Formats: sequence, C-alpha cells, structure tokens
Amino acid sequence: MPVNLPSPIAAELLPIKGLRIGVAEAGIRKANRKDLTLFLMDPDASVAAVFTKNRFCAAPILVCREHLGAPGSVRALLVNTGNANAGTGADGLQRARRTCESLGLLLGVPGQAVLPFSTGVIMEPLPVERIEAGLPAAIADLRADNWLRAAQGIMTTDTVPKAFSAQAQVGGKTVRVTGVSKGAGMIRPNMATMLGFIATDACVDQSVMQQLCRDLADGSFNRVTVDGDTSTNDSLVLVATNRAGNKPVANLDSADGQALRLALQGVARRLAHAIVRDGEGATKFITVTVEGGATQQECLLVASAIAHSPLVKTAFFASDPNLGRILAAVGYAGIGDLEQGGIELFLDDVHVATRGGRHPAYQEADGQRVMRQSEITVRVQLGRGTASETLWTCDLSHDYVSINADYRS
Amino acid sequence: MPVNLPSPIAAELLPIKGLRIGVAEAGIRKANRKDLTLFLMDPDASVAAVFTKNRFCAAPILVCREHLGAPGSVRALLVNTGNANAGTGADGLQRARRTCESLGLLLGVPGQAVLPFSTGVIMEPLPVERIEAGLPAAIADLRADNWLRAAQGIMTTDTVPKAFSAQAQVGGKTVRVTGVSKGAGMIRPNMATMLGFIATDACVDQSVMQQLCRDLADGSFNRVTVDGDTSTNDSLVLVATNRAGNKPVANLDSADGQALRLALQGVARRLAHAIVRDGEGATKFITVTVEGGATQQECLLVASAIAHSPLVKTAFFASDPNLGRILAAVGYAGIGDLEQGGIELFLDDVHVATRGGRHPAYQEADGQRVMRQSEITVRVQLGRGTASETLWTCDLSHDYVSINADYRS
Repeated sequence: MPVNLPSPIAAELLPIKGLRIGVAEAGIRKANRKDLTLFLMDPDASVAAVFTKNRFCAAPILVCREHLGAPGSVRALLVNTGNANAGTGADGLQRARRTCESLGLLLGVPGQAVLPFSTGVIMEPLPVERIEAGLPAAIADLRADNWLRAAQGIMTTDTVPKAFSAQAQVGGKTVRVTGVSKGAGMIRPNMATMLGFIATDACVDQSVMQQLCRDLADGSFNRVTVDGDTSTNDSLVLVATNRAGNKPVANLDSADGQALRLALQGVARRLAHAIVRDGEGATKFITVTVEGGATQQECLLVASAIAHSPLVKTAFFASDPNLGRILAAVGYAGIGDLEQGGIELFLDDVHVATRGGRHPAYQEADGQRVMRQSEITVRVQLGRGTASETLWTCDLSHDYVSINADYRS
Repeated sequence: MPVNLPSPIAAELLPIKGLRIGVAEAGIRKANRKDLTLFLMDPDASVAAVFTKNRFCAAPILVCREHLGAPGSVRALLVNTGNANAGTGADGLQRARRTCESLGLLLGVPGQAVLPFSTGVIMEPLPVERIEAGLPAAIADLRADNWLRAAQGIMTTDTVPKAFSAQAQVGGKTVRVTGVSKGAGMIRPNMATMLGFIATDACVDQSVMQQLCRDLADGSFNRVTVDGDTSTNDSLVLVATNRAGNKPVANLDSADGQALRLALQGVARRLAHAIVRDGEGATKFITVTVEGGATQQECLLVASAIAHSPLVKTAFFASDPNLGRILAAVGYAGIGDLEQGGIELFLDDVHVATRGGRHPAYQEADGQRVMRQSEITVRVQLGRGTASETLWTCDLSHDYVSINADYRS
C-alpha cells in the first residue's frame, strides 16, 4: 500500500510536442506484462542524463555513455523491465548494443541514436530476441499521449505507476513538463534501481542540459532512500524537444532558466517522492531535515545515517517513539567533533530532545501522536552552523522483507 | 532461534583467580529479571577497555573514560541492563557517577575504582535508586564460578547467554581466559550495543593492555555486523588479574605474548560470532571474505557493503541465489577505480561470477544448494592486490522487523 500516492490519471498528463511513446508486451521475464517502452523524439531534441555511481554499473549504462558521447542527436530511449543486464560482462555489452542497432534499423536512425535502459534481475543474460520481437509492437503503439502507459511499462516491484506534469511560462510561452519514474527498492541517493524520464517541450540550449539534469537529480532522486542499496542501473534522462517556440534557455540563472528549472524540479521531486511513497513495504513517508550544520555535507551525513538506520525505520513502522535511536544515528553519522550537548531533536512540532538529552516538557504521548501519522518530519539541529539538508525516506516493515525475499520466486 | 549456538554449560566456564561475579534482580525495567551484574577484582588487576566511536556515546562511557584516566586501579565493573543511560545529557552523567560512588561506599573503594556499563532503552532516566537497592544482593552473590550468571545478567534481546573459556601456556604456566558478551541488534563494527568482558588470570604488564584490548576488538567485535547500527554504549573490557604466576607479558610479539593473544582472540572471536549467531531474527551465519584488494581498507569497504545490504541479507533469508545483489554491493562499496572485469565471486565452493559476469559453468542449482545452508561463506576477489579482510554477519528476516518494532512494547 503506497503512502498517500494515488494513481495518475491519463488525462492529467500533458503530451510533450515532439515526443511519442510506445509500449509493448515482449515477454522478457513474464508473459502478459508491459515490459518494453520506447520514447521516440523528433530530430534536434536536446538530451542529457545522469547515471548510477555504482562501479558495477550495468551494460546499458556503459552503452548510454558511449552514445551520449558520440556525434549526432539522440532519437530514442528504449527501456526494458524484467532483466537489468548487469553483472553480465562483455556479453551483456554486446546484447545492449544489439538492441540499439535493431531499433535503429527499424527507425532508420543510427544505433548510436538510441539510449538503452534495463531494470530487473541482475546477472542473467538479456533476452535480446524477445526484445527485438517486441519492437514492432512498441513502434506501432507510438502516441504523444501515452505517458501513463510509459509509467506502467517501466514498473517492476512498483505498485503504482508514477507520472506527473507541470506547466511554466518561459520566454512568454507556456512550456510543458511531463515525467515518469520507477523504482521501489534498491533505492538510495546516487541513485537506485531508479529510472526517471522527464521531458519538456521548452527550447533549451544543449550547453546547459547536463547541468540542468544534474541539478534535478541532486534536488530529487539523490535525496531519497528506501533501503540504502545503490543500484547498478539508475538513470535520470532529461529531454527537451525544443518545440515550445521560446527563445532557447542558455542561462539557468536567468528568469527563464529559473522558471523552467522550478517546473522541472517540481516534477522531478514528485517523481522521487513517489518512489519513497511506493517504497517496498512502506507504510510511512518520512522527511528528515538536518539544520545548523557547519557544511551541507555533514548535514547530509547525519540525515543519511537517520534515514538508513534499520532501528529507526522499524521504530517508525511500529509507531514507537523510541526516539533515542535517532540520537544514536546522529552520533554515528561520522562527524568526528560533534558535541552531544548541542543537539536538538524535533518530531513534527514536538520538541523531543534538547542539549543532547530528553526535553523536560517532552511527553511520550506527544511523540506517540506524531509517530502514528503517515507523514512525519524528523528535524535535527546540530548547532554548528547554518547549513541544512533534507532527505526523504520510508519505514522498514515486514513487507519489505517479504517482497525482497520473494522477488524472484 | 540462534544459528548453531548452544547455551554455555556452567561447568565448562573456567573461574579466573582474583575475580568474583555477583548478579542481582534490581527491577530496573522489568521485575524478576537478572539485570545487575558486578565484577569485583582483587587489587592490582590490569584493566583496559575500548568503547563505541558513536559521538552520542552514553553517560557511562564518558564516566568510564574519566575513571580509566584517574590514578589508582580499577576494582569493579558494574553492568545494568534495561536502560542505556544514553541521550540523557548532564543528568545522565550525574546518575552514572552516583552508581559508582554508591558501589564504592559499599566496597570500601573510591568511586573512581568502579567502571559503569549500561545497556537498554535510550533517552530515559537511569533509575539509580533501584540500582542502589540491588547492590547488596549483587555483593552477597559474589563467587568466582558465576560466569554463566554473568552472561545471563547482561542479556537484553539476546536469546542465549554468551560465554566461552580457553587455556594457554604462557611462561611455563597454564593461564585461563573466560569472557562473556551480549548484544543481538544495533550491531556493527566499531561496535554495537555490544558489551564484552574478557578476563585472564595471566600476568600482563599494564603498558600493553590497551594495545592488546584494541587488537582483540579489531579481530572480533569490530568485524561483526547485524544491522549496521553503531550503538551508543559499546564497550569491550579486558581484565588481567595477574595471578597466574607467569612472568608478566610486556611484549605482545614475544612467544608468550602471542600465546596469550591467541587464547584471548579465540574467546573474543567466539563471543563476537555468538552475537551474530544470535543476531535479531538471524537464521544464517554468513562469513564475508574479500581478497585481492590493494589495501585492507578497501577490502573492508567491500565486505561491509555486502554485509550491510538489506537486499543481500533478505536474499540469504529467502535462500534465493539472487547473487547479482552481491555484485551490486561490490560496485557501490566506494572503490572509485574498481574494474568490474576483475571481479570473481564464490559462494562456498561454487564459482558464481568471473570477470564481472556470470561464470559459464555456474548453475543456479549449485547456488541454491549453498544458499540453503545455515553457514555460508561469500568470497569476493577484487584482483587488485594481496590484501584481504573478513566480516561476519547474518541474514535479515521477518523476525528482525518484529523484534525491533516490538522492543519496547
């Protein structure tokens, strides 16, 4: 049961001019399941992407990096579920390249104009023949208003498709943003078995696309965690189809740049939150804010220790205000010269700990009240400076164990 | 159900000359439970200790550090369960000091000759009066052959008391080693809600005690992990009562030093393994060995990523050879220049992956066979050098979530 995450409604997802989507059932791992999704861009779209930092990154990531570095524009994104094509060595690379070549032939574009994405089980050979056999159906399905089908087509253990849209005024034109994401486990900053595809019809200069994409990831997907496992396949792709008629955005700090970034960030953040809300076994959505740090980096260390602690996460699952576990996580986060006497802890509006000890006015009933909510904010003040950071996570429940113990069965 | 961990037998635990133990039911958190344990040493014992690196370390740890730095020898260790006296600020420090003073008065020794240890719930005031009321019963119970009662007296969520003995020849004399430990959750290297008390009757020069204690911790308690949470209260104490009549060991690299260290390390490692075998919800005991690293540090990073991964741990629980999850953990462990093509993965005798991809001869049935065992060794070769490291951990089960969701209820 996802936490406060309704299914998207197809009519509310805005088509992006210059981009069509086709989805097919290729039977990659299971029959009768949408498992192949094709994004096809008109020529001259601008594309950027950021990928997992996992050194065991999957073959398709390596191929994406090659193709993004090659001359000529990207025309298609090809996404399969059911198989991650990771831990597959040189053979996996060949298979990933072959899917690009095969799709390129059908579309009349070079294989290098295709970016491949895979998600699913690791260390099994990618069934290329099934993907190739599914391509004609995906092409036949191409439509501009297929965003909900795209969100469905990229799901693995997700229980709800994830898609959001937004609009903004950029250079006197109304520009649209629509994005989809998937990923419910193996989620942590930098990034997860997380796939995100965000498109806008705004005109954006290719020179700022990479920075824009990285900013989006840092403000959204790189700030969520479910279980601390960084996947081999994480990818966030940003596409600008350059069809809205605005003067191309070439400076992200201009008024136009900021308006566009805000709209994109809104979609990216909702997509990232949706991943946590649909986190494997999640029953609660937890916002962890750390303030008063000497640096953002140390705030992130502390937020991360809290958000990853199995003891903290099981306490949230149990609605048990066993809040000393949060203080313990603050203590082992890795700030070598942290003084306990400077620490303040709040749970929503409840002041739990002051100067490193229980607040005199704190009543367990108040902590209990907040812990029962489905949305909870943990706020820690370090008393060391003015930096702050926020992470989003979920609790750790029986269902997390069930889902991951049974994932392949 | 602990993994292959029988309860110790009182008669097999060797008394240590010059050390007596008393246990009492002080009703600290629950009635009718052994929750107060006193170790009383004759004068002139040598004592050393290592403590948690958690910056939110508990009040008793701060007091232990003060007292170890004070002149005069340590005479008593006082351990309570039911309350960790952590996250309790200045008031917690006062309470910890008061228990030492009160015990000191009863024993006729300075308060500084007492080291206090607490384990249990965080951020609640230590019930000093109950501890004080329990002290006479603990003193009345003092006996040299009370080691099994000590192991019982320090248990929290442990299901089995943990105690081991060994003997060695040092300087022509037979010396004895006996130790106890507790801790089943909040366990990770450096260290855990782990308490360990190891004593020997060997004569050991105080000048080498601290190094010896640190070596013991590094080879045992700092190499086990259950859930990655580093506790506020972890402590390992080494006592040498100096009664065996051997020439005092003043050089750990001498033959005598090595013989003593080996005996101590054997006990320390069995105590540490026992914590994992009795890990909260554990159904399997996993040894993670990483070989072929450029440095020990990078081997430890990789072993730690594998041992902490919830995805890897749930796969072990499910006996599911979803071994790509191990490769993924290797990839995100933090070695920036790791080459996948150099990675070999073994599960016991089964060669699972070679050159970063599935081994051609690997059959899932072979992986399945090993995964069903209750004791499993994961071996990763990095192909970068000659360093190696080993960690011990357990799987992640439904019961882990249950135990930690219900711990205080």
